[in-house]
Amino acid sequence: MKTRNLETCFSPANYEPEIHSGSIVVIIDILRATSSICTAFEHGAVSIIPVAGVEEARAYKKRGFLVAAERDGIILDFADLGNSPFNFTRENIEGKTIVYSTTNGTGIIRMASSASCIVIGSFLNITSLCEWLFTRDENVLLFCAGWKKRFNLEDTICAGAIAERLLNSSLYSTICDSTIAAVDLWSVAKKDLRGYIEKAAHSSRLKKNGLDDCIDFCLTADYTRKIPVIKNHILVGDIL
Amino acid sequence: MKTRNLETCFSPANYEPEIHSGSIVVIIDILRATSSICTAFEHGAVSIIPVAGVEEARAYKKRGFLVAAERDGIILDFADLGNSPFNFTRENIEGKTIVYSTTNGTGIIRMASSASCIVIGSFLNITSLCEWLFTRDENVLLFCAGWKKRFNLEDTICAGAIAERLLNSSLYSTICDSTIAAVDLWSVAKKDLRGYIEKAAHSSRLKKNGLDDCIDFCLTADYTRKIPVIKNHILVGDIL
Repeated sequence: MKTRNLETCFSPANYEPEIHSGSIVVIIDILRATSSICTAFEHGAVSIIPVAGVEEARAYKKRGFLVAAERDGIILDFADLGNSPFNFTRENIEGKTIVYSTTNGTGIIRMASSASCIVIGSFLNITSLCEWLFTRDENVLLFCAGWKKRFNLEDTICAGAIAERLLNSSLYSTICDSTIAAVDLWSVAKKDLRGYIEKAAHSSRLKKNGLDDCIDFCLTADYTRKIPVIKNHILVGDIL
Repeated sequence: MKTRNLETCFSPANYEPEIHSGSIVVIIDILRATSSICTAFEHGAVSIIPVAGVEEARAYKKRGFLVAAERDGIILDFADLGNSPFNFTRENIEGKTIVYSTTNGTGIIRMASSASCIVIGSFLNITSLCEWLFTRDENVLLFCAGWKKRFNLEDTICAGAIAERLLNSSLYSTICDSTIAAVDLWSVAKKDLRGYIEKAAHSSRLKKNGLDDCIDFCLTADYTRKIPVIKNHILVGDIL
């Protein structure tokens, strides 16, 4: 049986649309965009419109949309919500459409627009995501948001956790050094995941801004069964 | 005491000249450019002219220079030598200047031209390189050649080995996720370095072309005390 090919991009700087456009792309930005998106759908959001630019988000706000927007971790002055999953409470977002713009995560959703399918990955939905991938006979790209074109630890660790599950089945194989590295880093990190993520530069950034309260939550496996997916440029809460 | 900052780039796609120009840049392309450069100087080469393009290398050949040039691991038809350290024998290169062009390594030397100093790193000169870095009160960037803008395992592992030595002194610190990852991958790899490098995509590429005979040699620590350095755009064999 021909196995499916599994690859990993550590940051937007490493994304090659001509190579990856035929794959299912899993967007990973666990601190905090993809964790927040999974949380929003678990709490009843109807849809999320991802926008890359601040001005685009501001224009939606003027049109009356509920807007979540941050840069470098800080909520923008015109936005209703920031980038913490704790902002996406049932009270705030149930039954609503949210316009969402973040430093890294929403930008790479746009970059991956030529993919066969774009889904949202995080620890919060890792089991349902992997189970769904198993049912699809397609190559997979794990696309880490990183930090401003750079590698980051937290997204790589989550990619490694997903990759380990996929490779442990007989369905996938990889000749991608980034995927091998992600799995090996996950094997180091999983012994003390919270302690390991503490080493990441972004943990320090969040702590400095008093925004690190959500890190434990973002490392929680299987808070939701939702698999957010892009349909007609908009995120909806369930792939099925 | 203020510690020196240690950073790592996994590939040319991650290099940011405006951030890294003040640092000592260590070029790492162990399979095979930087291993071959260290070997060449150990075996008596006078200087090496790194050139990025094939046509530039061809032009030097027409002017009578000794030329080493490869693409994707294969020696170019007009070249005298390929990219294996075993090509750089004393008989072939002692007392000579060599023009050298490779797929990845020589290109990033040009990219780093705004650095305060550019030196060549590999396992072959790891101890002398680290000892010299200790004597310099400067920030350090470990610049991995990678493979065509992508992350690769072998250069990252060597960067991790160098980073571990620097960080084990009290002279350096890092807030760079790439450096932390490189050190952790080295901690996994060093238990069975040859077996680990076998997993790398480039090992398969070399094996496919019958060019993997030099891998054991390229993983040998301290074959030489030479620290090749760029002076006036040309590599010379000793920094001192």
